[in-house]
Amino acid sequence: MELSIDQVNEMIAPRFPGMVGVRFTELAPGRSVCELTVRGQLHNPAGVLHGGVHYTLADTGMAMALWPMLDADLPFTTIEIKMSYFKAVTGGTLVCTTTVVNKGRRIAFLESEIRDGARIVAKASGTYYIAAP
Amino acid sequence: MELSIDQVNEMIAPRFPGMVGVRFTELAPGRSVCELTVRGQLHNPAGVLHGGVHYTLADTGMAMALWPMLDADLPFTTIEIKMSYFKAVTGGTLVCTTTVVNKGRRIAFLESEIRDGARIVAKASGTYYIAAP
Amino acid sequence: MELSIDQVNEMIAPRFPGMVGVRFTELAPGRSVCELTVRGQLHNPAGVLHGGVHYTLADTGMAMALWPMLDADLPFTTIEIKMSYFKAVTGGTLVCTTTVVNKGRRIAFLESEIRDGARIVAKASGTYYIAAP
Amino acid sequence: MELSIDQVNEMIAPRFPGMVGVRFTELAPGRSVCELTVRGQLHNPAGVLHGGVHYTLADTGMAMALWPMLDADLPFTTIEIKMSYFKAVTGGTLVCTTTVVNKGRRIAFLESEIRDGARIVAKASGTYYIAAP
Repeated sequence: MELSIDQVNEMIAPRFPGMVGVRFTELAPGRSVCELTVRGQLHNPAGVLHGGVHYTLADTGMAMALWPMLDADLPFTTIEIKMSYFKAVTGGTLVCTTTVVNKGRRIAFLESEIRDGARIVAKASGTYYIAAP
Repeated sequence: MELSIDQVNEMIAPRFPGMVGVRFTELAPGRSVCELTVRGQLHNPAGVLHGGVHYTLADTGMAMALWPMLDADLPFTTIEIKMSYFKAVTGGTLVCTTTVVNKGRRIAFLESEIRDGARIVAKASGTYYIAAP
Repeated sequence: MELSIDQVNEMIAPRFPGMVGVRFTELAPGRSVCELTVRGQLHNPAGVLHGGVHYTLADTGMAMALWPMLDADLPFTTIEIKMSYFKAVTGGTLVCTTTVVNKGRRIAFLESEIRDGARIVAKASGTYYIAAP
Repeated sequence: MELSIDQVNEMIAPRFPGMVGVRFTELAPGRSVCELTVRGQLHNPAGVLHGGVHYTLADTGMAMALWPMLDADLPFTTIEIKMSYFKAVTGGTLVCTTTVVNKGRRIAFLESEIRDGARIVAKASGTYYIAAP
């Protein structure tokens, strides 16, 4: 994979991550960092950031951390992600750092940590399936 | 809680679930049904529905299944949700049915099943924390 | 797979499930029921059933629900299981009912429900990987 | 909490963790290390370490990492644990390192990493509920 960060951000702009406001700031094989500026439209009716927003950061960050490790012709899909929340978020910028913890031939396990400045506000762990060529 | 389905759909319209396209069709204490019409903007760059969309359905559906079981002054928050994916989705309408499986005084456990017509495409299980008055 | 329930119970007797006290009462492709009599040695130091016991029931029940669906030469492994607890257990007999919710070629998703008489005391959901021949 | 490692190992010896073979080697507020020597009786019928054994290490390690952070009169219970497996284990010694990632008043989130020498063979994340006095 030879995409620059700008190319990745352009690629996601017209899709769901772009709609939510995800933008990447680091990309490497097995690691990604993406972020998002919280705005009122991303809140739930209770006035705090909707849990689907953190999750979209993590799922998108996991895909982009795994992708540069794979041969171009191998599609991959999310098997499952568990997302845990620690602190309510109402504004500011969330930064999501993702690492590939283990990668087998067909199965990869990743973790994401979402911070709001110095606070860890949420963590996720997920499993991806890498299809055979 | 005495909100009608129309009132709930109005309440979420300007918030994240409304932006994603979630609309409720059934609401009862311990149960909700919500749905969403898949459109290209909800895809990921690979051309299939982004996993954050299924998750937003489930998280929103869980909140609205639990809420009518609670006294009005009890705020509640998502502790964690695990989301598992079975089939890629590219179009159509997703229907998410959520039930409260167990509700203690402070902790509730819920499950959501997401269907695309007859197919189960994803399932979620999650835990919510119900704050003390 | 042509093993009877007695043969399966003999097979697990000298292994970890046998040591814990798991015994099967139903086996079918995509479904299993196993049970266990709670005894003090299975408690944790706080005097209630240790969470590893429920988990061992679920993991063993999942393996035996999936196994009869597979060709004999396909090994399979647990990718992940999430276990949720609802009620403390101190005695009696636990019954764990497991079903295969979705089975693809390489990935299967299963759920287990653990009851203590009429009460649901715990639920699990898990993913298994089915190796290529 | 003023228990020494020897006292904790004595306390768990007659209970489920002792039966499985768990022994602690480090204990501190928010952190624990426990280990286990793999023996054939802990295998599953396929001849590899049963997943319930890793889980028992993690659940016990989480309880003992959280316990020294709490006032003596606060009981706590496992809400849920997700356990992910990376490598099959057949022998040797497993070492499980657990840390409290976030602790609120009522809810704590912990992670465990299980190693077999230099290899990470499994990871777990879990949530505990800390009861009101």
